[in-house]
Amino acid sequence: MAAGSPSTACPLCEGEGGRLVVGTPAFRLIHAQEPGFPGFYRLVWTAHVAELSDLSPAERALMLEALVRAEAALRAHLRPTKVNLASLGNMVPHLHWHLVARFDWDSHFPAPLWAAPLREAPADRLAAVEAALPALEADLVQALSALR
Amino acid sequence: MAAGSPSTACPLCEGEGGRLVVGTPAFRLIHAQEPGFPGFYRLVWTAHVAELSDLSPAERALMLEALVRAEAALRAHLRPTKVNLASLGNMVPHLHWHLVARFDWDSHFPAPLWAAPLREAPADRLAAVEAALPALEADLVQALSALR
Repeated sequence: MAAGSPSTACPLCEGEGGRLVVGTPAFRLIHAQEPGFPGFYRLVWTAHVAELSDLSPAERALMLEALVRAEAALRAHLRPTKVNLASLGNMVPHLHWHLVARFDWDSHFPAPLWAAPLREAPADRLAAVEAALPALEADLVQALSALR
Repeated sequence: MAAGSPSTACPLCEGEGGRLVVGTPAFRLIHAQEPGFPGFYRLVWTAHVAELSDLSPAERALMLEALVRAEAALRAHLRPTKVNLASLGNMVPHLHWHLVARFDWDSHFPAPLWAAPLREAPADRLAAVEAALPALEADLVQALSALR
């Protein structure tokens, strides 16, 4: 199989992997739909490559620009305590970035969201983040959809 | 305090944060010295900024180039199953990237290293990674030290 060819064994080649927010030829942004983390998105590279260093310099620059624009929109709309960015891919080795708006009241803060939970997140706080998503996502479409 | 000024309350302004491998004006690469993860490095931005989107476009491009070169050296020398990259900073909101060579035999694979361990890593495998670090780090110095 050529590097970058779709893989039938890969869930990120076979499906969106979440709720699609923005799609471009090179990447898509999806809402991760992870309970307790309403400000959790994923930037998924379209081509089936595993690592950042598999991208060409031009592709990497495009990916970085998309990441930065998405992070800036999350900060502007959700005012998170911190943004978490991660490219792990141990289970699904298809390049994708977790972008997570973290709050000092969330279930895991300040621990990584993959660690054990520390508390239950307050329902009213979660609902307030959920309520901010339509305006955030309108801006995400604006900021990302023309990137080539 | 001006954005980017050193903070006396920040451990990454006050100390290296690990064993220094490469230092440049804009960033440093340290070995994280995390037990069980000999191929775990951190790229620490020198200026005290919290988020990727706090950097200028030129700074971001430099950071990306450093990340990619470091990842490529890790892949060439350690042949990991996967590289994990993460900028979290919930506890220390000073921009730094975790770069971790992950192996299918390590204590947490395929889970994130912040999750609960799944097994004990074999001592001989850990020792083999340790033995590869001097050559890896010589290449990291070569690849990163002139980046401006």
